[in-house]
Amino acid sequence: MSERGIKPSNQPALADFKVSVDTVIFSVDTQQNRVLVLLIMRRDDPFSGQWSLPGTLVRQGESLEDAAHRVLVEKIRVNNLYLEQLYTFGGPHRDPRESPKSFGVRYLSVSYFALVRFEEAQFIAEGVSGIAWYPVKQIPSLAFDHGKIIEYGYQRLRNKLEYSPVAFDVLPDVFTLSDLYQLYTTVLGENFSDYSNFRTRLLKLGFLADTGLKASRGAGRPASLYRFDAEAFAPLKDKPLVFL
Amino acid sequence: MSERGIKPSNQPALADFKVSVDTVIFSVDTQQNRVLVLLIMRRDDPFSGQWSLPGTLVRQGESLEDAAHRVLVEKIRVNNLYLEQLYTFGGPHRDPRESPKSFGVRYLSVSYFALVRFEEAQFIAEGVSGIAWYPVKQIPSLAFDHGKIIEYGYQRLRNKLEYSPVAFDVLPDVFTLSDLYQLYTTVLGENFSDYSNFRTRLLKLGFLADTGLKASRGAGRPASLYRFDAEAFAPLKDKPLVFL
Repeated sequence: MSERGIKPSNQPALADFKVSVDTVIFSVDTQQNRVLVLLIMRRDDPFSGQWSLPGTLVRQGESLEDAAHRVLVEKIRVNNLYLEQLYTFGGPHRDPRESPKSFGVRYLSVSYFALVRFEEAQFIAEGVSGIAWYPVKQIPSLAFDHGKIIEYGYQRLRNKLEYSPVAFDVLPDVFTLSDLYQLYTTVLGENFSDYSNFRTRLLKLGFLADTGLKASRGAGRPASLYRFDAEAFAPLKDKPLVFL
Repeated sequence: MSERGIKPSNQPALADFKVSVDTVIFSVDTQQNRVLVLLIMRRDDPFSGQWSLPGTLVRQGESLEDAAHRVLVEKIRVNNLYLEQLYTFGGPHRDPRESPKSFGVRYLSVSYFALVRFEEAQFIAEGVSGIAWYPVKQIPSLAFDHGKIIEYGYQRLRNKLEYSPVAFDVLPDVFTLSDLYQLYTTVLGENFSDYSNFRTRLLKLGFLADTGLKASRGAGRPASLYRFDAEAFAPLKDKPLVFL
């Protein structure tokens, strides 16, 4: 491997990179029928004063996951955040610090995906300046290609609702089938399934346990409260499954 | 953003990276009941003389996808390879070129996933030295963390068979239901489903078209030949679906 400055002329020069980790953190406000994403106001150039994803550049000796956790602990108040890697964006010209003429250092972003409960979401942004939850349908102009990263993350969120029990990490411990349907509708849109089919399908999967409790809300008759039965779900964990 | 050498002492130093793209290319030999992965013998240090995934370091001005395509065109003969990004491995100490004491340049790998037909696979490796298809269950000791990358890719392959119509990209244009079952069994193991359930399930999904042709093989009665009906599948494309 040749180093810069001593490379033979027939060997094309390798790109040099800094690496950032940028995290798309979603929350779902089922009452207002909105998916929210956490944004941070940048204080440094480039894009100083613009909204962006929470992110940081990876330091010497630091793993990608450690860098992701560091920025979340430093900049926002959050407990037990579940993180998974989303996608890596690494093309040229995605950061103005790279001079297109001089082939300067490039900036590659390894993005991560996270989902938090709405109550936790309120805690995260409370009383902290330069941090806000934006509805995913009303994202302002963002720094870098962070708008594209959010689009990618939103698709992942939809896939996770369809193929994994992630909804039960977001709902309260006990919930009505109508709460669950509302969560799916908020993320997937009105027309993903009618309520009756959804209800039949979910109950048939066998991991929703009726608690015997009822919730009285508004004028209708009280609705049964369910909980996610992790034990009943365990044998299904590694099987392919669709949740709607 | 501070540069190395002139950083203020309270600012931790950022890591410098080179970036490689490494591709896990699978093929499925249903006759011999084996999943194969393409390996390349390294000719340069580090790990000279050891098997590795086909990969390269990203050059100045080059996108990640372009780098992945370049190595495939340069090193192996392949047509119309479908590539998708797999995962990014970027922790410290994954490459011996990084001196753990001096915090030298780190090497991050953006891995890609590909799947080719078995006939194409035979063409790729034919008459080229230092390239071989290895059964995924008999992988030799590999350079870097490439063994871990293959494990990750194998999981992706299983998921794709479960949740997407990727099988029909790998099978010939016409096939028997037994061919299709054999492909699934080869990748997912013997016990994923019995043949009769699998057959019922796949026919019910409605995108396998009976060609009217029969295949005579061995002693049994001739089996119907099917083709994948892309038009019938189109409305299902964006719906969550399980293929078994």
